[in-house]
Amino acid sequence: MSFATTRRVVIEDVTPRVDDGRFPVKRIVGDVVTIEADVFADGHDAVAADVRYRRSGQRAWRHVPMEFVVNDRWMAEFAVTEIGRYAFTIEGWVDHFATWRRGLEKKRDAGIVDEADLQIGSGLIEEGADRAKGADALLLADTAARLRDRTRPIEDRVEVGLDDEVAAAMRRSPDRTRSTIHEPTYEIWVDRERARFSSWYELFPRSWGEPGSHGTLADVADRLDYVADMGFDVLYLPPIHPIGRTNRKGPNNSLQAGPDDPGVPWAIGGPEGGHTAIHPQLGTVEDFRKLLGRAADLGVEIALDIAFQCSPDHPWVEEHPEWFAHRPDGSIQYAENPPKKYEDIYPLDFETSDPEGLWEALKGVFEFWISEGVKIFRVDNPHTKAFPFWEWVISELKSRDPELIFLSEAFTRPKVMYRLAKLGFTQSYTYFAWRNTAWELREYLTELTAGEPREFFRPSFWPNTPDILTEYLQTGGRGAFITRLVLAATLSSSYGIYGPAFELMEATPRLPGSEEYLDSEKYQIRHWELDRPDSLAPVVRRVNEIRRRHPALQRNDGLTFHHTDNEQLFCYSKRDGDDTILVVVNLDPAHVQSGWTSLDLAALGIEDHHHQFQVHDLLVDRRYMWQGPHNFVQLDPDQLPAHVFAVRRRARTEEDFDYYL
Amino acid sequence: MSFATTRRVVIEDVTPRVDDGRFPVKRIVGDVVTIEADVFADGHDAVAADVRYRRSGQRAWRHVPMEFVVNDRWMAEFAVTEIGRYAFTIEGWVDHFATWRRGLEKKRDAGIVDEADLQIGSGLIEEGADRAKGADALLLADTAARLRDRTRPIEDRVEVGLDDEVAAAMRRSPDRTRSTIHEPTYEIWVDRERARFSSWYELFPRSWGEPGSHGTLADVADRLDYVADMGFDVLYLPPIHPIGRTNRKGPNNSLQAGPDDPGVPWAIGGPEGGHTAIHPQLGTVEDFRKLLGRAADLGVEIALDIAFQCSPDHPWVEEHPEWFAHRPDGSIQYAENPPKKYEDIYPLDFETSDPEGLWEALKGVFEFWISEGVKIFRVDNPHTKAFPFWEWVISELKSRDPELIFLSEAFTRPKVMYRLAKLGFTQSYTYFAWRNTAWELREYLTELTAGEPREFFRPSFWPNTPDILTEYLQTGGRGAFITRLVLAATLSSSYGIYGPAFELMEATPRLPGSEEYLDSEKYQIRHWELDRPDSLAPVVRRVNEIRRRHPALQRNDGLTFHHTDNEQLFCYSKRDGDDTILVVVNLDPAHVQSGWTSLDLAALGIEDHHHQFQVHDLLVDRRYMWQGPHNFVQLDPDQLPAHVFAVRRRARTEEDFDYYL
Repeated sequence: MSFATTRRVVIEDVTPRVDDGRFPVKRIVGDVVTIEADVFADGHDAVAADVRYRRSGQRAWRHVPMEFVVNDRWMAEFAVTEIGRYAFTIEGWVDHFATWRRGLEKKRDAGIVDEADLQIGSGLIEEGADRAKGADALLLADTAARLRDRTRPIEDRVEVGLDDEVAAAMRRSPDRTRSTIHEPTYEIWVDRERARFSSWYELFPRSWGEPGSHGTLADVADRLDYVADMGFDVLYLPPIHPIGRTNRKGPNNSLQAGPDDPGVPWAIGGPEGGHTAIHPQLGTVEDFRKLLGRAADLGVEIALDIAFQCSPDHPWVEEHPEWFAHRPDGSIQYAENPPKKYEDIYPLDFETSDPEGLWEALKGVFEFWISEGVKIFRVDNPHTKAFPFWEWVISELKSRDPELIFLSEAFTRPKVMYRLAKLGFTQSYTYFAWRNTAWELREYLTELTAGEPREFFRPSFWPNTPDILTEYLQTGGRGAFITRLVLAATLSSSYGIYGPAFELMEATPRLPGSEEYLDSEKYQIRHWELDRPDSLAPVVRRVNEIRRRHPALQRNDGLTFHHTDNEQLFCYSKRDGDDTILVVVNLDPAHVQSGWTSLDLAALGIEDHHHQFQVHDLLVDRRYMWQGPHNFVQLDPDQLPAHVFAVRRRARTEEDFDYYL
Repeated sequence: MSFATTRRVVIEDVTPRVDDGRFPVKRIVGDVVTIEADVFADGHDAVAADVRYRRSGQRAWRHVPMEFVVNDRWMAEFAVTEIGRYAFTIEGWVDHFATWRRGLEKKRDAGIVDEADLQIGSGLIEEGADRAKGADALLLADTAARLRDRTRPIEDRVEVGLDDEVAAAMRRSPDRTRSTIHEPTYEIWVDRERARFSSWYELFPRSWGEPGSHGTLADVADRLDYVADMGFDVLYLPPIHPIGRTNRKGPNNSLQAGPDDPGVPWAIGGPEGGHTAIHPQLGTVEDFRKLLGRAADLGVEIALDIAFQCSPDHPWVEEHPEWFAHRPDGSIQYAENPPKKYEDIYPLDFETSDPEGLWEALKGVFEFWISEGVKIFRVDNPHTKAFPFWEWVISELKSRDPELIFLSEAFTRPKVMYRLAKLGFTQSYTYFAWRNTAWELREYLTELTAGEPREFFRPSFWPNTPDILTEYLQTGGRGAFITRLVLAATLSSSYGIYGPAFELMEATPRLPGSEEYLDSEKYQIRHWELDRPDSLAPVVRRVNEIRRRHPALQRNDGLTFHHTDNEQLFCYSKRDGDDTILVVVNLDPAHVQSGWTSLDLAALGIEDHHHQFQVHDLLVDRRYMWQGPHNFVQLDPDQLPAHVFAVRRRARTEEDFDYYL
């Protein structure tokens, strides 16, 4: 017989699981994981179930008893206390003792307990005593004897059998000989806190020198306090490697570069080296180490850009021609998206005859920078490299260094972006830059935070990047920049800006209708007047400060949208325990907008509609007393297009009003 | 390296699948199965995919090309032409030829095709010629040569490369050397038509004799035309085995039977035999064979009741005491649901020390009756037997005789009922008997026909059973019976009634508040006056006739609910191709109800709101012309509480109005 004949318990629909268990769910160290499953057996016997879980590398399973919820659904929770992989599944069994105890109670109430009932229970408890240890074993052995003792009144013996302590001891040493252990086992990937909560700043080091010079890593180190002061905790650098000369692009993506044009940092590789070398004009490995040290002092992590593609001058082109596709004439196939050709870039060919060699070399790139102390990588266009490679390389690298964080820069179709997240990317770029209306934002955030992606996809919201200057920012002026900043930083626990273009409100496109920056740093060196009086740096600093002080903004699962009677006033809240942040943003950068909220008070933790509550605008440190769901809001984009309120349920004393932020 | 390095194509979210592929989906022979999946690869290359499927026992996979739908979703269809198991999965690959062809088209439009492009295509097509056979091989070889031919103008060669016939030939012989074949493989169980569309009639043979006598199988055979005339195609008999004497129940479930009381047919087994014996008072195996023969002549199948439990007098009690649980005093544990005891029934113990012996014996019961020609079994309380047993036994039996149909009589919690269906039961009893309001019916039918259960759970709707005389029937009178009949027979493609109690409107409960019949046939012999003038038999006959003539009523997937302005007027339609049935039922058996429909005209196949359409009430053969969504309905429960309309979109000629039913 091919079926287990004794496994009476059925286990179904275990959650959370991703793609039928093919991929791990993601959590953060310290999280309490809630596991649910349908657990039931034939007939009327009582069942019991445990969640079994263990950290990767551990042999023994830990057991957490599940509790019945409703409709055959059971639940248990456990905390993931270490970074790395966990495995879990469910074990369920028919609980003969619980069945007997339930029946005994009913028979007692009906006055029909007979001697056989007590003998059966005594036998079950005696078996429990054999399984149990220590005090439980003693208790159960003693209970079994008392149940058997015919010299005692039957009523007493019934109460002995129904004792809660006895039931608890029996539950601690259950008979699992016929239990069902659900297959497959599911996985949880546990990351460090920064995987969920991070504030990124992107800059081109070559623009950070003195005017007229090529900036260096040392220049960045010198001015790193500018970034740290604004409250960012990740500094992301575009590729810092030697840049190819062959077919180098000039300013504004022109096809011919002049002799002094610095080229595109993503055209990686030259005679000086490839993905493990540093562009000589940026400095040395020693300079890079100093930058890492300075960053660490300031509480900032350096994220490197990993772009797996080569300029025609990359050493691999000579050393490993088999890693590239060739044209019939023997030349290497450059990148193309017909009819466009990108002759300055050679893609790697994942259908190479030497996949092992290629994969190992790419892994080696990560390993080189990891050995230099880098723990965060922003991966360029991962969707143009074979998916199995990412699953392999991220798994290999994180198994040795589980603190690693990989940000997927894939602006492509949704299922491709989600697949990359499932394969192991820690965070992901999103469509946020192009979601401008309240409807668009609600739909997208609902998909990300309430749909399936919530288990594996951690969004990073970027209002701009060196490739993306949206029409909204081009045309909306200062109010538009602040609106997009507030949305990114409060809707998503991870976000980033490309600066100083962002805080200096760079808004001119290369061509009308284009999202490319005019005079983009991708192609040329720029110099930024960081102390310009209209800089948004103080607003950015305030927003990051609010994010650091408010746990509600450090995760995405407490998001609720609130209705307003004006679609231009976009209103939402985030909550984590006692911390509640309520945001109202004027999405229209051109006009003052006003209207009334219809707050979901329960989502704000406010039970009493009659009581006032305080909303404290953390952006400008002003407090208002609100009451009920309907409150008036007016936002002027020329002043400040957003409220970021801390919601305080009730001021008990004068002092309560005093605290700031 | 542990990951397939060359499998660039990803396949996700294959549908239909049940419980992550753990169980087969169910279909009916002749059905067209629609398979969908997300299929995509890294980068910008074109992908292609096939559904691979085969019947159980076949070695070769058949391939059906999938078509792109939207958002990386692909679809293919194939017909399941034989009863039994099918397996399917998806194969996807990067289609280099399609990628090249798409690029060539764009380059042609941009005027930048070069020699290398044509050489690449020629190589790809040459490889295709090597894979292809017959005419395709010739075509492709010729095409490759023409593409290579530098004496021809490049424009001509481009058109050769873009030829549709060439593309079709390449698609028929694709390069699948690096393809991804999705795991796991999924299963489809294909049943015969009656698994989906069946009309059941349940009767107690012992009540079909002359008054004062114990009816026999021969009596049933003699009067079988009564059942066939009403249009039923399945006659279901409660257990026909010897009935135990020990602790036999008397009339109305009394604890003491008199010497002439016939006992409960579900207390199976006596000195005359057990589950493979026929109760002597019903007749012999020869009588049973004659009944089967007579039924076959009338187009009726006999369904036997399989109730795996034993009276204390069952031969197994002596022969296999190890198949029963024992009390401490050595006696066999009778059934109990504390504080109730059922001393006339011994349950089988699926935790027996001899599971193989027990399972084989139970399988043998089915096999015995199958060998007598029975192909339909109504299984009593399957939820009180171990689940793995059902998966094993149904799989074993259907692998030899795929025509078998098993109806699960499990009135228990929803997940248990669904599990039994997943394990292999062909049809299932439901909560229909207790779903009376429009809201309840809509919710339940939506769950069954639009939720996950639609892939594996085939409902059978019963307005009554020997155990279930609902309050609605007890109190509602004739109108209530017709209402419940029409609902059962038009909402569900399989339904049944327990007769003649149903058509004779037996409505008296044993006690107020009880759903048990007074003087139930479960405990005593009844005699039924089949030709009573108020019998509902003519209505039943008409309803079954309508079901047979209208394919829309023979499946559940074309169901749509329509709003009315009176919640007592429950309105829905079913559609299968050109056949559309619209039903309006007055759920209030006590009052005339009237109101206006708000028809979803698109669901009725009516595109033009201005055109009239005909609704032909098939119950009474009356036609009305309706127009638009809003039409008046009035239903009198004392007359006929339902309309069952055939909807005819447009009468083109006078003749069209003439056809009847």
